[in-house]
Amino acid sequence: MSAVKELIGKPAEWLSGENEESELVLSSRVRLARNIDKLPFTHTGREKVMADICGTLKETLSSVRSMKGALVIEMDETSEPDRMMLAERHLITLDVVKNYRDRALVVRPNEKLSVMINEEDHIRLQAIESGLSIRQAFTSVDRLDNELDRQLTYAFSENLGYLTACPTNVGTGLRVSAMIHLPGLVHNKDIAQVLDGLRNVRLTVRGIYGEGTEVMGNLFQVSNSVTLGLSEADTVKNIETHIRKVLEFEKKAREVLLKKARSLLEDKIWRAYGILKSARLVGSKEAMGLISAVRMGIGLGIITDVPMAVMNEILIMIQPMHLQALYNKPMIPSERDRVRADYIRSRLGK
Amino acid sequence: MSAVKELIGKPAEWLSGENEESELVLSSRVRLARNIDKLPFTHTGREKVMADICGTLKETLSSVRSMKGALVIEMDETSEPDRMMLAERHLITLDVVKNYRDRALVVRPNEKLSVMINEEDHIRLQAIESGLSIRQAFTSVDRLDNELDRQLTYAFSENLGYLTACPTNVGTGLRVSAMIHLPGLVHNKDIAQVLDGLRNVRLTVRGIYGEGTEVMGNLFQVSNSVTLGLSEADTVKNIETHIRKVLEFEKKAREVLLKKARSLLEDKIWRAYGILKSARLVGSKEAMGLISAVRMGIGLGIITDVPMAVMNEILIMIQPMHLQALYNKPMIPSERDRVRADYIRSRLGK
Repeated sequence: MSAVKELIGKPAEWLSGENEESELVLSSRVRLARNIDKLPFTHTGREKVMADICGTLKETLSSVRSMKGALVIEMDETSEPDRMMLAERHLITLDVVKNYRDRALVVRPNEKLSVMINEEDHIRLQAIESGLSIRQAFTSVDRLDNELDRQLTYAFSENLGYLTACPTNVGTGLRVSAMIHLPGLVHNKDIAQVLDGLRNVRLTVRGIYGEGTEVMGNLFQVSNSVTLGLSEADTVKNIETHIRKVLEFEKKAREVLLKKARSLLEDKIWRAYGILKSARLVGSKEAMGLISAVRMGIGLGIITDVPMAVMNEILIMIQPMHLQALYNKPMIPSERDRVRADYIRSRLGK
Repeated sequence: MSAVKELIGKPAEWLSGENEESELVLSSRVRLARNIDKLPFTHTGREKVMADICGTLKETLSSVRSMKGALVIEMDETSEPDRMMLAERHLITLDVVKNYRDRALVVRPNEKLSVMINEEDHIRLQAIESGLSIRQAFTSVDRLDNELDRQLTYAFSENLGYLTACPTNVGTGLRVSAMIHLPGLVHNKDIAQVLDGLRNVRLTVRGIYGEGTEVMGNLFQVSNSVTLGLSEADTVKNIETHIRKVLEFEKKAREVLLKKARSLLEDKIWRAYGILKSARLVGSKEAMGLISAVRMGIGLGIITDVPMAVMNEILIMIQPMHLQALYNKPMIPSERDRVRADYIRSRLGK
């Protein structure tokens, strides 16, 4: 069994629906960009150099404590569908799907900690945790960073901080994000105002698959855009504070909804659940909307017979390449709509 | 317990989904209009006369064999909601709901045979059977007619036949109808052409509640419009022949649908079933549409865990007055939408 197949055989642990605010926050993610001193950035380096860097880093990573037992996935040895699947799991970027030479992913089997080698930067460390666990994610990524720092010499400037291939990451090289679920604010139409507020404090809001992607299932990825002039600790604290404010707004919106239109809300939630349990064809966008309603239903204690983790896992598993992997064949979209519906039904029981 | 309450405590037997073509034909109905010779028609008669007629007819009916064990419901003694409910069960007309003085309903507990006294005509005999059972319905209504004929003198003209209050019924006084379910023809849009064809052979097509009512749930009531110049037997034979033709068209439409768009059709059917099993609010029109899809699903063998009878019973029980009676209180429409959804869920199980 290939490492990729081994991974997708079970759900990523950060989908567990555990930890604080996990009804409103799907996951928290912390990413650090690092480069090795005196070596060319990936976009300027020649193949031989990149291959050497990849080799060195794999070796280093295999020796550090945080990555004990990690799987090493050489991108050269993967198929494009497998890489797409890794992207759907948020382990690699779409850039790596396309440009896979001399790149690798080192990932712990629970997928909470991983390293991309030779993406935009030589090293991209990533920690994902369930719920609102930004500090927890930062702690594990920071620990790994320190372990690597002992063995490698990072490209670092006293003035600027960590040097990165793209200037937007220079400084801390830190990107903190949370995937938050805001159906209440979307429903009461306050969402635009709330997102504006986040942008005003220099946070970025994106759809579930990052930059340039559409918002689906009322899931918003909120991340910091500043990496320069703010310490790592302040970055983490700042984004967490703002996210907590948004969560308060979402809770208020849900409260008001329950108070003013409980029957309509319950009906919407139960119908969504009913459709997911019975449909024979379902597109990915519609599915996300239905899952969103059921997640809210679980959050409000209206639906009690399905764990949040199951909904979170479905969210990841119904993506195109995951479905193909699950059913072990390439499929046209209409076939995927069928197996997507089949998969969802199988997870939600009869 | 009042006679009305006794009736609605259990489903009418003609909803059993038994007999021929019951997947496509909800019910077959035969009605005979009769008047007593030398007595004024109901719209011209004074109260005293009408009261006398009502008394006489109740007595006569209590003595005939076909009506043994029948319930006698004096309209004067019923509440308007109860009368509405009887109308929803197709036992009395909306006219009787409003104008109830000196009128009565005599009905066998299984509701397959009943007599309205002093509606438009002194006597309206009605037989309803499940499925395509026009001849069976005619036989029982005809037997009752003969039994009454032995004790009463009907208003009859050698030239015209039976005399009735409204000229459209003069002759046989016979109205034969079937409630047919044509979702396939509605879906493939051939329905307009098929209905035109029926009108061309002088059949009338109406919605589920008769004259002037909207078609809901793809249920069409087809009845003869000619009562003069055609024997009873020919009337029955004629309408049955035409209905059988329509049923063939419907079957073809379903076959083509299954062949060309099986997945879409199955999805539509299963979603309808899922929504009925989970919704918390459902309007009567939407419910009829969903029931229509599930009925078709049962007919096509796609849905196998719910008997047709249950869907037929739901069709009747979710009407406004039935819901009020079931929950024993008057309700505004939004409350009814809630109890309608509750009732449907309770019938379809978890």
